[in-house]
Amino acid sequence: MNTSLRRHFMRLLAVLVLASPLPAFADVAPQAAPVYSVSPIGWVRKSEGRTWIEIEPKYQPALLGVDQLQSLWVLYWFDRNDSPEKRAVLQVHPRGNPDNPLRGVFATRSPFRPNLIALTQVKLVAVRGNLIEIEAIDAWADTPVLDLKPY
Amino acid sequence: MNTSLRRHFMRLLAVLVLASPLPAFADVAPQAAPVYSVSPIGWVRKSEGRTWIEIEPKYQPALLGVDQLQSLWVLYWFDRNDSPEKRAVLQVHPRGNPDNPLRGVFATRSPFRPNLIALTQVKLVAVRGNLIEIEAIDAWADTPVLDLKPY
Repeated sequence: MNTSLRRHFMRLLAVLVLASPLPAFADVAPQAAPVYSVSPIGWVRKSEGRTWIEIEPKYQPALLGVDQLQSLWVLYWFDRNDSPEKRAVLQVHPRGNPDNPLRGVFATRSPFRPNLIALTQVKLVAVRGNLIEIEAIDAWADTPVLDLKPY
Repeated sequence: MNTSLRRHFMRLLAVLVLASPLPAFADVAPQAAPVYSVSPIGWVRKSEGRTWIEIEPKYQPALLGVDQLQSLWVLYWFDRNDSPEKRAVLQVHPRGNPDNPLRGVFATRSPFRPNLIALTQVKLVAVRGNLIEIEAIDAWADTPVLDLKPY
């Protein structure tokens, strides 16, 4: 960019910043969106009416003390929606009902969202080894689990 | 594997399964841990005692209806702990206090955990364009935000 062009550009930028009634954070915004990686720490398992979270053996030490909790937050991955098309859905009719007015996915618990993280609360039944038996969960069998936190 | 060896193996497997008091889910476990990718949908911003979540412009349509909420769940990324060493920490003394007995990270809200997802609740002040002003948040300025959900 030559000097004259740059001067015009900086002047334009200053006008835009001064004219804005909102804070201008553009100077701290990163150049390209970073990508972070997550991997399952366990899996939802269902069998004969009972439900478990099976923790990957290597993460079993992270369960120390979980048996003293009554409820857990479970963060899991909406793995059935892990395609670029589904992750690009930004507005939905809540509960898939066209009578419900269109909402942004950040105002809903829709399984369509840019980062496919689900948040749900479960009640503990028992912890044995790397298996956490829970009362029920709003997730399919064999869903990948990303994290557990105390409720 | 020859037929005799396979027969021995299957017999051993049957014995192990029958001897186990816990459900055996090994047959449904995947071979290698999958990796999923997440990217910031926005950033925590702080300025002159005020706090915002700045949503990436491309995700602004996902905010439709957020202005009608009073509180939000914010899922953010503990980006300062994003190293293999820190992500391998499975037990901590809660709140970094050695007097607190050691706990598994899944029994705590520690920022050390395999998947660096933080969960926190915030109160909304106002939504203007791609900026959500909030009362406060337990995250550093410029922390990457992964998801918003209604509280």
